Amino acid sequence: MSDLPKAIQINEEGPREGFQFERGPIPTGRKIELIDSLSETGLKQIQVASFVNPKNVPGMADADQVVAGFTRRPGVRYTALWLNEKGLQRAIATGRLDVKGSLSLTASEAFLKRNQNRSAAEDLVAERGIARVYRDHNVPVERISIRAAFGCNFEGDVAPDRVVRLVGQLIEAASAQDFTIKIVSLADTMAWATPNSIKRLVGAVRTAYPNLAVALHLHDTRGMGIANAYAGLEMGVEIFDASVAGLGGCPFAGHKGAAGNVCTEDLVFMCDEMGIGTGVDLQKLIASAVLAEDVVGHPLPGSVMRGGSLATLRASINAATSA
Amino acid sequence: MSDLPKAIQINEEGPREGFQFERGPIPTGRKIELIDSLSETGLKQIQVASFVNPKNVPGMADADQVVAGFTRRPGVRYTALWLNEKGLQRAIATGRLDVKGSLSLTASEAFLKRNQNRSAAEDLVAERGIARVYRDHNVPVERISIRAAFGCNFEGDVAPDRVVRLVGQLIEAASAQDFTIKIVSLADTMAWATPNSIKRLVGAVRTAYPNLAVALHLHDTRGMGIANAYAGLEMGVEIFDASVAGLGGCPFAGHKGAAGNVCTEDLVFMCDEMGIGTGVDLQKLIASAVLAEDVVGHPLPGSVMRGGSLATLRASINAATSA
Repeated sequence: MSDLPKAIQINEEGPREGFQFERGPIPTGRKIELIDSLSETGLKQIQVASFVNPKNVPGMADADQVVAGFTRRPGVRYTALWLNEKGLQRAIATGRLDVKGSLSLTASEAFLKRNQNRSAAEDLVAERGIARVYRDHNVPVERISIRAAFGCNFEGDVAPDRVVRLVGQLIEAASAQDFTIKIVSLADTMAWATPNSIKRLVGAVRTAYPNLAVALHLHDTRGMGIANAYAGLEMGVEIFDASVAGLGGCPFAGHKGAAGNVCTEDLVFMCDEMGIGTGVDLQKLIASAVLAEDVVGHPLPGSVMRGGSLATLRASINAATSA
Repeated sequence: MSDLPKAIQINEEGPREGFQFERGPIPTGRKIELIDSLSETGLKQIQVASFVNPKNVPGMADADQVVAGFTRRPGVRYTALWLNEKGLQRAIATGRLDVKGSLSLTASEAFLKRNQNRSAAEDLVAERGIARVYRDHNVPVERISIRAAFGCNFEGDVAPDRVVRLVGQLIEAASAQDFTIKIVSLADTMAWATPNSIKRLVGAVRTAYPNLAVALHLHDTRGMGIANAYAGLEMGVEIFDASVAGLGGCPFAGHKGAAGNVCTEDLVFMCDEMGIGTGVDLQKLIASAVLAEDVVGHPLPGSVMRGGSLATLRASINAATSA
């Protein structure tokens, strides 16, 4: 048996991934309802919105109202996403978010060129600038992330060496602004990872930077999400992004190929069954997943929300036996 | 990195699992179309029908016609399922099937009581009778299987020791009729397994019976199918049942909680990417999965059929680069 971690931390990204992806429109009040429901599950970190241009992402046009409206539960960190200084300033202005900076590079030059019309060198220069912006705003930075860390639809497989090199560049960019990086997130943005490549890349990054905690951000487009998470657990990974009910994806042909992050309640279920602590109440999380389906108005990819938890079955079996 | 097998054998169970489960009715010709499509993929074993009482399983009322109608491809074994001597005789009478016997016990006494109104002792007596029937019909038996090997919705967790004991009982029942068992299939009938329990049970069975090959039959009700298959691969398991497109399950709330076997093309994809041979052409299998959705008339759970193979992406990237 592998040496699995005793506990993991889950960063819930469902509201951000989901409301960004869904065609909607979803009423602001219902978004808040879902966030408030997630706050009751024991999740310690919830990403609630992204502050981006509403022309590009109409589902986030009400980000300010969503953030103003949800009920903060003590002990839960509420985070958001932004892509530039203006977005950062909006996040800070809410006064209701745990604003922490993150620096990111993309491991595929073809993807960079296509999406941002940038070279890898220009991407690094831009991140150095972002590090300065965080310093100017007194926003702490301790996390970096590498996008398309396992492969890219426009460039193919990504060599672990390249990811390790980018990690080094981001640590330097952070260090130039006196930030000390503690976490590196490896993002399987386009769902190229399988359990073996998870182990290979996590191993390579850990060997090069043994003091960094590794986080995994796994998309489930090819159905490998939970298997990849398990491979990460086997490597001792203790931080996972996940999305309640698989928000951000959709099993319908109309959203062909789309898939969200690995499903939070499926991940919690696996951990529960393997004795790995998550701090999350699975029954409450299943209720949030069912609510998420109702909020978006169509089936979502999650399995355990339909199959049910085993803890509940065990309890009812025990009750029947002792009756 | 674990010592994964070089190649695995996949037993395709989609037609049998699917047509048994679907509300239908599905025209016989379309069932045959799917089987013929699967025959072209490189799969070496396809379970095409079950010979059961059509009153209980209306979707199998045309089993004889299905078996009479498909085109046998050399090198492919076509199998079927039956539950009693009458069903076995029907399978033999077709003259078109690879008729092999299998003995099974159920690891949950509560499930046995509920479904067959039998004790474990009576179940064993019945299997001894079935072994005699196979001997009488000159049908070879080299496989046994344990149902609910990981847990049961009516009894709870199943201890590996109990499964090991049942394996021993079936080996004896087979031996009494001069059959030598080569394969033991561990069936996660009610989706209680997680990667750790896969490793625990496979390890226990292998320790007790090192000469038996272990096969896994994994249902995906709680989304653990591919992760459990990966855990099996890590234990060196080389035989897997699987179901094209995840036939036998349905992501809709109308089939609440239902899920088929682990999805064949998702399993083939994972193996392809990890260098494990399957003999299956993934693109052809994806075409069969798309056909399966068309045949049943609603979305099926498979992921890679939507997300696409990476081999195809790599080829198009290479073509663009060298153009």
